[in-house]
Amino acid sequence: MPETPAELRAGFRAGAGGPTSGLAPGFRQANLLIVPADWAYDVLLFVHRNPDPCPVLDVTDTGSRRTPLGVGSDLRTDLPLYRVWRDGLLVEEPTDVTHVWREDSVAFLTGCSFTFDSALTRAGLPWRYPGRNVAMYRTNRECRAASRVHSRLVVSMRPVPAALVETASRITALIPASHGAPVQIGDPGKLGIRDLERPDFGDPPQMLTGDVPIFWACGVTLQAAVVASRIPFAITHAPGHMFITDVPEPQIAP
Amino acid sequence: MPETPAELRAGFRAGAGGPTSGLAPGFRQANLLIVPADWAYDVLLFVHRNPDPCPVLDVTDTGSRRTPLGVGSDLRTDLPLYRVWRDGLLVEEPTDVTHVWREDSVAFLTGCSFTFDSALTRAGLPWRYPGRNVAMYRTNRECRAASRVHSRLVVSMRPVPAALVETASRITALIPASHGAPVQIGDPGKLGIRDLERPDFGDPPQMLTGDVPIFWACGVTLQAAVVASRIPFAITHAPGHMFITDVPEPQIAP
Repeated sequence: MPETPAELRAGFRAGAGGPTSGLAPGFRQANLLIVPADWAYDVLLFVHRNPDPCPVLDVTDTGSRRTPLGVGSDLRTDLPLYRVWRDGLLVEEPTDVTHVWREDSVAFLTGCSFTFDSALTRAGLPWRYPGRNVAMYRTNRECRAASRVHSRLVVSMRPVPAALVETASRITALIPASHGAPVQIGDPGKLGIRDLERPDFGDPPQMLTGDVPIFWACGVTLQAAVVASRIPFAITHAPGHMFITDVPEPQIAP
Repeated sequence: MPETPAELRAGFRAGAGGPTSGLAPGFRQANLLIVPADWAYDVLLFVHRNPDPCPVLDVTDTGSRRTPLGVGSDLRTDLPLYRVWRDGLLVEEPTDVTHVWREDSVAFLTGCSFTFDSALTRAGLPWRYPGRNVAMYRTNRECRAASRVHSRLVVSMRPVPAALVETASRITALIPASHGAPVQIGDPGKLGIRDLERPDFGDPPQMLTGDVPIFWACGVTLQAAVVASRIPFAITHAPGHMFITDVPEPQIAP
């Protein structure tokens, strides 16, 4: 019997490991970024100006470990794996961030492509990366900067059989809170991507004959912004180790 | 021949008067709120948490009078009438705010119901307030507060013939950047509104037999927040005297 989001969060709090892909089917998962209050305006303006890669689900009150997205949750302990960043450099990958939590922390929870992956699967699209991470690439597109925060857009790529390209575009366009419609279809060069076999994050894709590469804005853009902007202190989820929310996924008719 | 948004803005800059209702048909108009930088985070979080009354179209860079919503525009001069607020009290209603502009100003431009009024008119809904302002009411619903900014929700009301209620709901639901679907249909008491004939803002409505009152979240909520939160200094548009953008209105099929 599948565990509920609250049970899974309690499990991570008690020491269970991730990743979270495939857990709590039917519920949204979220990217996490925590910054000190003096960077919160810059980040909030950045995510507001770049809703495709960074669709905000919640911003916490300063100092609060709570979010209405997960009743009874504690953002310091309820993800299976975190990353701690100083001056844009990864310094630690702990299972709990109580020891580095600051009282002026502000947490941003943003939509994750796991949500549209399940909508695409329900619509009959083949799942080309069982047991692997989706391929992600840095692009040549600058996000709209906000004060001190800036980044190039990061995209995820899914190989889609040509006959299903229109379906994949249409379905994801209906889920703006999970990155929305593709940013590019079929031409990696337009995004400055030279070699699909060498993604910047995740695993190399499995392209079959007749597959078209489709690119979507990716939540990893926000981690790229931590690095590019050299934010003095930040906490994020570790890739693939998301915050599991109580919020049901949207039901999109295929 | 109708004037372009840029020509109209230049006219206001040169001293032409408003209001702006009906001007530049086909282009979005926007509510304006300007606050000093030390209140910008609170306001940005408030509008983010309350997208129905406050659908953000743009947030300017600190100190900038420019917005990409209006090429070549100057937010200090390009609206026909402004309001200046100190500690939540209205202190002045000038046609230009150059004399009170602060170098740490941040401007918020949010969606306006003029956009959905034109979509409703195209869909065959009768226009019940020619030459009048729409009726607006304070409600008993608290918006989700953000740090120091809080307000009750303000709604606008349009009387709609019963047979067109579903059409009006459906069309406005498609325009989230102009307040989206109704917050209440047919029962003012549910919102704590006792007397439709006595709106808190705007003119009394013209209800005909068979009309159903439909309530939508209203951009005036943001001015109510200036008052309720006693923001030390703020500039807004004067009611009905909006910023005319270069952004085309969405074309919603009736």
